[in-house]
Amino acid sequence: MNKSQIETLLQQVQTGAMSVDEAVGQLKSMPYEDLGDAKIDNHRTLRCGFSEVVYCPGKTPAQITRIVVELVRHNHPVMLTKADENAFAAALEGAPTAIYHAVGRLVVIPAPDPPVSVGNVVVISAGTTDMPIAEEAAVTAETMGAKVTRVYDVGVAGAHRLFAHLDILNKAQVIVAVAGMEGALPSLVGGLAACPVIAVPTSVGYGASFGGVTALLGMLTSCAPGVSVVNIDNGFGAGYIAATINKQANQ
Amino acid sequence: MNKSQIETLLQQVQTGAMSVDEAVGQLKSMPYEDLGDAKIDNHRTLRCGFSEVVYCPGKTPAQITRIVVELVRHNHPVMLTKADENAFAAALEGAPTAIYHAVGRLVVIPAPDPPVSVGNVVVISAGTTDMPIAEEAAVTAETMGAKVTRVYDVGVAGAHRLFAHLDILNKAQVIVAVAGMEGALPSLVGGLAACPVIAVPTSVGYGASFGGVTALLGMLTSCAPGVSVVNIDNGFGAGYIAATINKQANQ
Amino acid sequence: MNKSQIETLLQQVQTGAMSVDEAVGQLKSMPYEDLGDAKIDNHRTLRCGFSEVVYCPGKTPAQITRIVVELVRHNHPVMLTKADENAFAAALEGAPTAIYHAVGRLVVIPAPDPPVSVGNVVVISAGTTDMPIAEEAAVTAETMGAKVTRVYDVGVAGAHRLFAHLDILNKAQVIVAVAGMEGALPSLVGGLAACPVIAVPTSVGYGASFGGVTALLGMLTSCAPGVSVVNIDNGFGAGYIAATINKQANQ
Amino acid sequence: MNKSQIETLLQQVQTGAMSVDEAVGQLKSMPYEDLGDAKIDNHRTLRCGFSEVVYCPGKTPAQITRIVVELVRHNHPVMLTKADENAFAAALEGAPTAIYHAVGRLVVIPAPDPPVSVGNVVVISAGTTDMPIAEEAAVTAETMGAKVTRVYDVGVAGAHRLFAHLDILNKAQVIVAVAGMEGALPSLVGGLAACPVIAVPTSVGYGASFGGVTALLGMLTSCAPGVSVVNIDNGFGAGYIAATINKQANQ
Amino acid sequence: MNKSQIETLLQQVQTGAMSVDEAVGQLKSMPYEDLGDAKIDNHRTLRCGFSEVVYCPGKTPAQITRIVVELVRHNHPVMLTKADENAFAAALEGAPTAIYHAVGRLVVIPAPDPPVSVGNVVVISAGTTDMPIAEEAAVTAETMGAKVTRVYDVGVAGAHRLFAHLDILNKAQVIVAVAGMEGALPSLVGGLAACPVIAVPTSVGYGASFGGVTALLGMLTSCAPGVSVVNIDNGFGAGYIAATINKQANQ
Amino acid sequence: MNKSQIETLLQQVQTGAMSVDEAVGQLKSMPYEDLGDAKIDNHRTLRCGFSEVVYCPGKTPAQITRIVVELVRHNHPVMLTKADENAFAAALEGAPTAIYHAVGRLVVIPAPDPPVSVGNVVVISAGTTDMPIAEEAAVTAETMGAKVTRVYDVGVAGAHRLFAHLDILNKAQVIVAVAGMEGALPSLVGGLAACPVIAVPTSVGYGASFGGVTALLGMLTSCAPGVSVVNIDNGFGAGYIAATINKQANQ
Amino acid sequence: MNKSQIETLLQQVQTGAMSVDEAVGQLKSMPYEDLGDAKIDNHRTLRCGFSEVVYCPGKTPAQITRIVVELVRHNHPVMLTKADENAFAAALEGAPTAIYHAVGRLVVIPAPDPPVSVGNVVVISAGTTDMPIAEEAAVTAETMGAKVTRVYDVGVAGAHRLFAHLDILNKAQVIVAVAGMEGALPSLVGGLAACPVIAVPTSVGYGASFGGVTALLGMLTSCAPGVSVVNIDNGFGAGYIAATINKQANQ
Amino acid sequence: MNKSQIETLLQQVQTGAMSVDEAVGQLKSMPYEDLGDAKIDNHRTLRCGFSEVVYCPGKTPAQITRIVVELVRHNHPVMLTKADENAFAAALEGAPTAIYHAVGRLVVIPAPDPPVSVGNVVVISAGTTDMPIAEEAAVTAETMGAKVTRVYDVGVAGAHRLFAHLDILNKAQVIVAVAGMEGALPSLVGGLAACPVIAVPTSVGYGASFGGVTALLGMLTSCAPGVSVVNIDNGFGAGYIAATINKQANQ
Repeated sequence: MNKSQIETLLQQVQTGAMSVDEAVGQLKSMPYEDLGDAKIDNHRTLRCGFSEVVYCPGKTPAQITRIVVELVRHNHPVMLTKADENAFAAALEGAPTAIYHAVGRLVVIPAPDPPVSVGNVVVISAGTTDMPIAEEAAVTAETMGAKVTRVYDVGVAGAHRLFAHLDILNKAQVIVAVAGMEGALPSLVGGLAACPVIAVPTSVGYGASFGGVTALLGMLTSCAPGVSVVNIDNGFGAGYIAATINKQANQ
Repeated sequence: MNKSQIETLLQQVQTGAMSVDEAVGQLKSMPYEDLGDAKIDNHRTLRCGFSEVVYCPGKTPAQITRIVVELVRHNHPVMLTKADENAFAAALEGAPTAIYHAVGRLVVIPAPDPPVSVGNVVVISAGTTDMPIAEEAAVTAETMGAKVTRVYDVGVAGAHRLFAHLDILNKAQVIVAVAGMEGALPSLVGGLAACPVIAVPTSVGYGASFGGVTALLGMLTSCAPGVSVVNIDNGFGAGYIAATINKQANQ
Repeated sequence: MNKSQIETLLQQVQTGAMSVDEAVGQLKSMPYEDLGDAKIDNHRTLRCGFSEVVYCPGKTPAQITRIVVELVRHNHPVMLTKADENAFAAALEGAPTAIYHAVGRLVVIPAPDPPVSVGNVVVISAGTTDMPIAEEAAVTAETMGAKVTRVYDVGVAGAHRLFAHLDILNKAQVIVAVAGMEGALPSLVGGLAACPVIAVPTSVGYGASFGGVTALLGMLTSCAPGVSVVNIDNGFGAGYIAATINKQANQ
Repeated sequence: MNKSQIETLLQQVQTGAMSVDEAVGQLKSMPYEDLGDAKIDNHRTLRCGFSEVVYCPGKTPAQITRIVVELVRHNHPVMLTKADENAFAAALEGAPTAIYHAVGRLVVIPAPDPPVSVGNVVVISAGTTDMPIAEEAAVTAETMGAKVTRVYDVGVAGAHRLFAHLDILNKAQVIVAVAGMEGALPSLVGGLAACPVIAVPTSVGYGASFGGVTALLGMLTSCAPGVSVVNIDNGFGAGYIAATINKQANQ
Repeated sequence: MNKSQIETLLQQVQTGAMSVDEAVGQLKSMPYEDLGDAKIDNHRTLRCGFSEVVYCPGKTPAQITRIVVELVRHNHPVMLTKADENAFAAALEGAPTAIYHAVGRLVVIPAPDPPVSVGNVVVISAGTTDMPIAEEAAVTAETMGAKVTRVYDVGVAGAHRLFAHLDILNKAQVIVAVAGMEGALPSLVGGLAACPVIAVPTSVGYGASFGGVTALLGMLTSCAPGVSVVNIDNGFGAGYIAATINKQANQ
Repeated sequence: MNKSQIETLLQQVQTGAMSVDEAVGQLKSMPYEDLGDAKIDNHRTLRCGFSEVVYCPGKTPAQITRIVVELVRHNHPVMLTKADENAFAAALEGAPTAIYHAVGRLVVIPAPDPPVSVGNVVVISAGTTDMPIAEEAAVTAETMGAKVTRVYDVGVAGAHRLFAHLDILNKAQVIVAVAGMEGALPSLVGGLAACPVIAVPTSVGYGASFGGVTALLGMLTSCAPGVSVVNIDNGFGAGYIAATINKQANQ
Repeated sequence: MNKSQIETLLQQVQTGAMSVDEAVGQLKSMPYEDLGDAKIDNHRTLRCGFSEVVYCPGKTPAQITRIVVELVRHNHPVMLTKADENAFAAALEGAPTAIYHAVGRLVVIPAPDPPVSVGNVVVISAGTTDMPIAEEAAVTAETMGAKVTRVYDVGVAGAHRLFAHLDILNKAQVIVAVAGMEGALPSLVGGLAACPVIAVPTSVGYGASFGGVTALLGMLTSCAPGVSVVNIDNGFGAGYIAATINKQANQ
Repeated sequence: MNKSQIETLLQQVQTGAMSVDEAVGQLKSMPYEDLGDAKIDNHRTLRCGFSEVVYCPGKTPAQITRIVVELVRHNHPVMLTKADENAFAAALEGAPTAIYHAVGRLVVIPAPDPPVSVGNVVVISAGTTDMPIAEEAAVTAETMGAKVTRVYDVGVAGAHRLFAHLDILNKAQVIVAVAGMEGALPSLVGGLAACPVIAVPTSVGYGASFGGVTALLGMLTSCAPGVSVVNIDNGFGAGYIAATINKQANQ
């Protein structure tokens, strides 16, 4: 029930077409969010548009197809994360315009009128094995309307490689820093850059890496301010946040 | 060695006042950061200005006084975190303009020309015992030039209290959500708001709260996109990030 | 040895048909529980009836068939949990009336005289991937005689979906709340409902979800009173408890 | 804004005393919970009545007095948990009828018209050092209107002590089982009793007890169905749930 | 109700002095353990005699005095573990013959007729800081009737010290091996000795010792067969087990 | 170099057939263990006899065959643990008398003159899925010369089943108690029996069982004295220790 | 940009062939490391030579071939760790001189002019299942120019085996000690040897071994000074460090 | 029994002054280490000289005085770690030449003839609060004869500070890198330096620092080869290892 529906209801009460009791009954159960003002509507566009992301593991191809069909009806861009070839096939069945980003394991079904790319999100990663998560972040941000610059394979153990890209860091409006192992890259980047840094720990590593926990803890205790952290391997989340910040900075 | 010093050196080489060998020797040892362009300078202003934050635990009053004296010389605002009364006294000795925010345990020494407050950072907390960390975030953001709206004591177990403040959430440019126990507030807020949410787990709780670990894990695995997380009780870090995002959105 | 058997024995002693020594010997080894009064008998009916649940993983089809044959002889309902197709086939061999609930991975062999459904157990879940555990709880409660209302896919990140079902929560006599990830749903439900809430963490999630541990910890530290918790993915246990509470409330 | 207020508003619209636009504006911001029907009211009575429990650690005496004064105005019973002598003194200042249960560290301010005690909640504990938590549960349940039977010091290592109280267990409508160390008591009780068992792990123990974690894990993995668990040392939570179940069973 | 009491009851039934109904009533509630045969009696002598050990932390002096008075009435030896000076004073009040073993923090109240010492329990410890736990084990075993040989300060980092005592290890009937830090002593001892080794991890150490967890894990994963483990700092438990094994080997 | 070799050397020195320098050289490098007296020899017979147990995972069939061939040469019994069918086949190739205990996953190659069975080791387990580990313990003890009594499927949730076997527990000289889940069985057994109890946690369970960690912790913190613990799933270790204790008690 | 390139640039400035502005621009972005003096060059030879090690898991054969081709161009030795047969095949395609060390799962492509072997690195391991990691360390050290002595299968549970090799330990310049399970070998070795000991925990073991964590913690808390530790299963890292220390000691 | 004592014994056998039997008896029990050749002697000098380090926590002043008196008799340098003022006073009583290094909390009693300082150990630390552990390492290495260069307060968040000291790193023969929080310094240093790096995690930090565990894990999973790790806050161990490596490199 949106604003105009409430107006209609109230006009019916005003005109006597609806009793007060009936109106009370309907108002009590109206979805709260439908009371939202324009700001909330903007919000919903954003939230529904981009949060309707489908996490594929554990879903059958049939479920994926059905969800995709339902979502594309609303003319929103749709993203499927951690998608394998089967998930892509299922998505294609529901939406022929679906595109598969194999490295980042993302399926994207662009909106009919995609946003114009703005700003500058830098996605930086420590090792080649971190690339799938970095790509997940980069493609997510691009799908949400951000220009993205990729700087891959610039780990801490060869810090000169990072320093060779200082210009890029300095021009970023938000940085997504992706690293496994000891996860020190965001600390180094956070010490060099003035913009917000979204740190993504990856499950890359062995032994005391504990599937990304060590990187996660290292990022949380970073001595560089300006670094916030998302879940292990959550490239999508980091790209989403980066795109949101980037959008605000370019309005 | 900054840009103008390099220019001087090169001019000396150009005029023959310095030999090539001598110039090579000087260039090899020049501090890297001093090559920075204007962007880096901006960066340094920001970083040195706000990152020169003093974490008080484990420092003696004498050390604190000495550090404060050194920092205020650069006309930067200075912040001391997790500061008790003794730390405040030591700061006062070094800077008579020091102000003590007792709840947030912050000492602030404003810059001579503080920034004009802009934007809208909303700091929201779940329980009254989370207030010290929430205040640490709020005062930090204010010191860095952000307008801050506080919404305290709106925990998940009484969700109606949160919903009564939807307007405030909708007007935020960035939200800092502070919670202990199960740490569910950022998930709820992240599902309602369109802007970035910085989640701060607090060490409030007992038993299986594990000193904030449960809240931390809950925030990291939030099913709401747009939520990134800082360390347990790191109100300063969250306020810093929020102010940075807020600043970008209001340039 | 039940009460009447003890009476018989004592009468034999009384009549001299049994010596004191022989009676001492028999009494020493009598199973303790067989001394139970009517309440204990009721108890045993309940306990044996519903606790004779077979946890399938690690059991061979032959073992399952044999156990099923033995259990159905006592005219009790029998449940097999975490059952795959093979376990169902094995159960069918032992009991042709066995029914397979594929989503909840439960095999149910109804008692000859199933209980009349009473009361109102609400099973609510956060995400679609939590559905198998939610169904395990729901079918368990139904098998034990409870009316069950299902409310699925109402996670915290879209709290309005939950609020649209407030009526259902208010009519519940006991609620089973199932969630993975950060596991915040029971906190939210516990803050809205007046009846007991049984929280079930699921292993849904990745990274810092740690196979359900984060959801478990979040539920244990819930700031909403009225929430108690069962093991990760233990839909059966939650359904069992809910049915027990529901039965008491409808006697 | 409650139901009658909505009716008034709608009548004003009906009569033309209020324009549709103005009504829309007021409805948009009405607190959601005030739309509640009678059931919700019941719910609020219960929730506000008993959930307005004050967790004392970290609160100053002045804060405690202020909160107590505010709460007793609503004629609800008030409870303060983990309260020391100072907290009691602060409560007394706000409410002269406050009573201190020293073992359970609870302050209770009874409602003017306390509920008549009904039903049968059995609180059972394993060791003498578990008694403070057991008492916290027992007094909580009593304050909420439950008759309570205490069975203390019946640990697993001397199971005969437990078996001597089988009659009591059989008559319970809900059992709160409190134990530290390995926390096996709820498993044993759950195997003997037909009613719901609320298990409370305590932080009693040393070494591999890990402050109650071992007891907590043991209770969560109990092989006895019918056992649900609350946080370590959360006697209040267990008493609250027990009282809620007990109330339903005696309506 | 012991065996002779049952006989009396049955004779009363036999002679008609007690009705069958009354006898049923009495038998239903008789403590199970009182049905025990001679073996169980032996068991009880042992168990009650030595298991009536009082863990002091968390008990008030008054409680300790009262417990001691009650226990010494049964002519059993009594032990108080983790006892400080206050606990000793409280014990003295209840039993003037109480002895304080300050290093092992044990109070012992010998039985009127202490057992003759037999066998050979060797207690071996790695470092001087492990001595309190080693003494707790040694005194416990002595109190329970074992001859004890102490070999202290023979850690793994100076293995030659251990090898100098091979003769003692070879003559042991059971060895208690006490170590903190990495806890490697039991592995080394277990590889050298033919008798059972009871390993006791201590909380000695810092950093990655985690309060004894590392020693505990090391002992549990010992590559030497013949090693079983008790809780961190549980010298009493190890001494108890060692005395039990030693007693069996010398019957 | 054994005792007689040292005598020969010394006699050569005495007669001048060997210089002092040469003797010093030989003595410096003599294997320490070869100085052992008769006790050490007994020890070695025991240790080599029973500790030459082959842990199969990670070994190739060829390696297993080679090891078996080498071990059977010394006329010792040989055991292979965690052995699958392939390991058995490899063992058969090296020793035609090898026997496969499929449930316990043990291959046993008896010594030419196996020991006469003595004593009484009781192996008790909580659930049917614990049986493989219980059998591993039972067969190990039997191979080492112990009479073994098996009592399976007597978990804590149905304590009456355990009480029906009290006679067996009372006659045991050592008990191996095997349990997964919450691992409460050893506590219960330890409270009933007077002999040493070796507790074996199993990896049976799910969720908060954490692959046996919960059972392990529960056993370590058992409130019953007399319980010591071995590694998760280490049936062999428990059987080995039980046989050693049993042997001492029957010498 | 290396030293000669800087000289060229400066000469161009000197001769006027390049403007000061242009030179500033080029110097600002020059890779820092290319300013290195002879020491840095040595360093780079070492670091690039040996640190260009390829961790194979997660890389496709095509990626491996491409990386190998690129690396061998620089005439450096190349190592591939955790390499299976497929990785070896891929390496062979890029470098026909590649050698496969199957046990240590290392592929080595020697430099055209391999270093002359010097010094004495001793690699010692506890069990046969630790051999792959021990070999990884040994081959790594050999590839980097160290003479290596292997002492395998000398675990703590049979300490005499270790003592028989004391001569070898005494002649070592650095020792790599490899062990799983409780990981006590480095403690024992560190107490006997005067040279640095690099400890490598392996993931060998089960249950409370936690995939090498127990060995890791045991090594970190070793009571023997002189022991430092690398990650679980990181034989390469240990061999690398050992070779570096060995090289310094033989310059 | 050292080499000359063995010679005496053998000469007594040679001359008939001692019987063969008596000699066998004495040789069997001689301390193994006394058979050591020159290398072992060197080893003992080193080990006894430097490993006779006294860890003060948990020792009484009287114990410390007694130990110091005993150790200084052997003309070895003595070190007391984690020593407070009381420990220093106790040491002074036993050795008037004792010196107190207050920051590093070390008491040093120099040998009568201290070694000449050689080589170059660089101790580098991340933050000012890491200084006590850094000093513990530096003073330890100096006491053992190493020249030490200190580079403090060069954390990762301001990497330019580290780069300003590249010359120092390049001249080091071994580096001790000390850091708390995320512990990234050793990774950065390890990527820049060619010599071995000993990483010391400190307990500096809060929240997810977990008392140094995060730094420890980060260092163990460092992507830079050449880094090995010691226990949290183990500055002594790192200094000891660094001095040993430094000594080898300067022989």
